Formats: sequence, structure tokens, C-alpha cells
Amino acid sequence: MKMMEGYRGFLGLLVSALLLGFLSVIFTLIWVLHYREGLGWDGGAPEFNWHPVLIVTGFVFIQGLAIIVYRLPWTWKCSKLLMKSIHAGLNAVALILAIIGVVAVFDFHDAKNIPNMYSLHSWIGLVAVILYAAQLLLGFIIFLLPFAPLALRAILMPIHVYSGLLIFGTVIATVLMGVTEKLIFALKNPAYKDLPPEGIFVNTLGILVLVFGTIVFWIVTRPQWQRPKEPNAKFLQPNGSTPEGNDYSVTGDFGNVDKSDVDSEATRKRNLKLDEAGQRSTM
Amino acid sequence: MKMMEGYRGFLGLLVSALLLGFLSVIFTLIWVLHYREGLGWDGGAPEFNWHPVLIVTGFVFIQGLAIIVYRLPWTWKCSKLLMKSIHAGLNAVALILAIIGVVAVFDFHDAKNIPNMYSLHSWIGLVAVILYAAQLLLGFIIFLLPFAPLALRAILMPIHVYSGLLIFGTVIATVLMGVTEKLIFALKNPAYKDLPPEGIFVNTLGILVLVFGTIVFWIVTRPQWQRPKEPNAKFLQPNGSTPEGNDYSVTGDFGNVDKSDVDSEATRKRNLKLDEAGQRSTM
Repeated sequence: MKMMEGYRGFLGLLVSALLLGFLSVIFTLIWVLHYREGLGWDGGAPEFNWHPVLIVTGFVFIQGLAIIVYRLPWTWKCSKLLMKSIHAGLNAVALILAIIGVVAVFDFHDAKNIPNMYSLHSWIGLVAVILYAAQLLLGFIIFLLPFAPLALRAILMPIHVYSGLLIFGTVIATVLMGVTEKLIFALKNPAYKDLPPEGIFVNTLGILVLVFGTIVFWIVTRPQWQRPKEPNAKFLQPNGSTPEGNDYSVTGDFGNVDKSDVDSEATRKRNLKLDEAGQRSTM
Repeated sequence: MKMMEGYRGFLGLLVSALLLGFLSVIFTLIWVLHYREGLGWDGGAPEFNWHPVLIVTGFVFIQGLAIIVYRLPWTWKCSKLLMKSIHAGLNAVALILAIIGVVAVFDFHDAKNIPNMYSLHSWIGLVAVILYAAQLLLGFIIFLLPFAPLALRAILMPIHVYSGLLIFGTVIATVLMGVTEKLIFALKNPAYKDLPPEGIFVNTLGILVLVFGTIVFWIVTRPQWQRPKEPNAKFLQPNGSTPEGNDYSVTGDFGNVDKSDVDSEATRKRNLKLDEAGQRSTM
């Protein structure tokens, strides 16, 4: 096991992603607290305002972190089961925040007699929430519970990875539509087209969310930054090859199925030693 | 060289993508011709209407085709230079249509005294056009002209691939914002929130564009559907390995640099024979 390629580049991008995600949440809070009516659960505008706050915090920032959590090299000594649990846990938190965020809008619409589910934003957004819940449930059953056979996991992993990234990208597109809608509806005198400070500020929020997504996508699609496969996967076949013959073609471009679902304490200790040796040899 | 894995699945998805892309263009035409003011170049609404038509045709459909053109297995016998030229040519056509589409909006705004460049849609859309032009120019200089050294190509290919897909995804997000804007502005009495037939129809157009993008992304990120590397790449090193040692880590997850820029007629004939043999052996 060698040192991660481009470790400094990884760290720089990770810090940028964290900063941009954090800034996106702060910008959303400043938007609703400073420019808009604040936060509350009263059927009025303050209740609506939970929608952008919870979506950007949960569905964008936390989902983004859940996507790149396997890439953190200092977690490669942790068991795969632990990392899967963190991945699933972050996604579960993101889902709960997203659902509360959606409920806030329905509540607000109902109180104000505004129709629900007419906009493209609402159509795509609701489908994204439903697919995200399905993805979490299927991921839990197939990859976290110990029942699914390895062959099934290997077939489904590229689909899991792809649909996860598709949902994340779709959520970002939906946020950009939501920002557009809200600015058109909320800014009157001066209108959005006269670009008042709130318009510039929230356009900037949109850019921050997009750049956050861009960095998360870059990090997660670099093959050299993937969590290494468990070494004991190599011992499943006498010649060191894996049952499918070619990991690359089976697990897809950025999927990564370990043939061992839970690595033993002994394996983990061996990884640690190999890793230390690797670090020494590259110093 | 073996038969393409999952050839039928590939064909099904390719046909679906073509159908969805074509339907998106048709839907856009029906939108502006049936529901809106038609097409014209008069500074009025018919001039604006060129914007969605040209963007969906060029920046979505043709760009999508340009992205997957290397994946068509019946082109694998064609020279890489020819395929690169087709890839660059399709992208050039898409860029020209996108630029005319943007000019149409500026013209319309100027004639109607509507400010330019205030919306998030315009900010992200203009950046996408500029990045797309830069991507095309850099791609032409580095990958199509014969001057750039192979090492530089290998370093830049994953960035070229990533930024191409990023721009494509961003364009789709920008289309969804544009649809949202236009429906809010254009639908009055009944308004967008009352979901008149035009609202349902154009929301559906948004979904078509998103699903088209989804299929293009799936096709292009399947490693087993990549154009095989040129066999003579293997002859650059005596032991058959490539200079970088590991193609996968250098060319990224779905980048694919051939060490030979232009394959010779002899190589192409050999490919052909190997391919025929491969097909016989899998029948």
C-alpha cells in the first residue's frame, strides 16, 4: 500500500470543499435572516425560509460530505463497516433535513393558499427526495446489512455510485431553480432585473453551491484517491485475482466493492503496518 | 479485441438518448411555435424564441452526441484522428448555435429595454459558454493538432474529460433555470402556479432534457464501453507496458489517451481482423 498520489492536492480540494459548503450554509442563513423574514414555524414566510436553510445544509453540504467520506486517507485504517455506517448516517441526516425542508414549503403553501407541485423545481425536487430515500434504503439493505451476496453487490455498486452522483447533481440543479424562482417572486421594487444587493448576494450563493458540487465531483471521480481495496480480497482466489477477473470492468469507473464486507482486526493491523512501511519508503 | 460488453444494453440506451434528445428539440419547437410567438429575428418575442431552440438543439442535444461519439463501437475501426475531428466538429457546431442563441437574448433585451446579465441563469449560462469555447480551443490545440507531447496529453486528458462533463451538466442545470424563469415571466392568467397546459408541457420538456443528460452521463462513464486503446500503444515499451506504468491512474476514470495520435492504415486493418475474429469467437 503506497502513499496517496497527490495528497497535497487532495487536501487543498478537501479544504476548499469544506469552506465552500460551509460558506453556502452561512450565505443561506444571512439571506433568510438579514434579507428575508427570518426563521419560524408559523405557516408564514419564516417557515418557508427553513426550506433553503435545510436543503442547502442537508441535501447539499451533508450529502456532499457523505459522498467523499471514503476518500479521506486517514480513514483507510478504519474498518469498511465503520465507514459505510458513517456514509449511511450522513445520508440519513441529509434525508431527514431535506424532508423537513420540503414539509416547510408544503405547510407554507397550504397556509397561504398557494398551489403545491406546479413548478419544474417542485417536480424534479420531489423526485430527487424520493430517489434519495430509495437509494438510502437499498444501500442499507444491500451494502450495509451482511445478507446480499458479493456478486450482487458487485453488479449493483456501479449503479449505486452513479445514481448517488446523479441525485447529488440533480439536487444542485434544483437548488439553482429554487434560487431563481424565489428571487423572481420575492424581489419587487427593486425587482430582480434591477439586480439589488439581495439579487447579487443570492446569485453568489448559487455559484457557491455549484462550485461546491464541482469540487465534490472532482474528488470522488479521481481513481487515485479511492479507498484501497481490502488486501484480504486478494486471498479469495489462489492466484490473487478476484472472482470477476477484472475489478475495473465490474465495479465501474468509480465504484469500489471490497470482497470482504467486514475486515478483521488482524487485517486492519496488517494494513497499518504496510501503510507505515509504505510511508517510510516514500519519505 | 473482444466484443463490446453489454452491446444490447448500449444500443438500447443509445436509441433512448437519441429519442430523448430529438424529443427535447421537438418539444422546444412546439413550445415556441404553438404556445408562444413563433420564430423571427425582429427584436421581439420571436427573436427571443430562438434562444431555447438553439440552446436545446446545440448546447444540449449536439453537445450530448459529441460526448458519446467515441463510444459507438462501429466507429472503433475508424482512425482516432477522424473520430477526434467529428468530436471537435460537433462541439464547434454546438458552440456556434449556443452563441447565436445567446445573441438572440441580448438583442431581444436591448430592443425591449430589459437589463442583461442580472439572473443566476445568465451568470452561469454565460460562464458555461465561455468555458465551452475555451475547452474547444484547448482541446483542438492539445489533442487534435499533432504538436503536444504525449505526457502533456496524458496529464490533461482527465481534466478535459471532467471539464467537458461539468460543462454539459451545468448547461442542463442552466436550461432548467431558464425554463423556470420563462414560465414565471410568460404565463399570466392563468399563471404558472395554476399549471396551464403550457406549464405542464414545458415542465415535461425540462424532464426530457434532464433524462437525456442522465443517459449520456451513464453511457460515457461505463468503462466497458470506452473505445479500446490503439494496439500499437502497447509497442511503445518493450514489455508491453505504457510509459506511465498504469494507464488507469494517469488517464483518470474515464479519460482515454491513445499513445498513438494517428493510427496507421496497417494498424486499422489489423484491428479489423482482430475484431472479426473476436466476433466469431463470441458467436
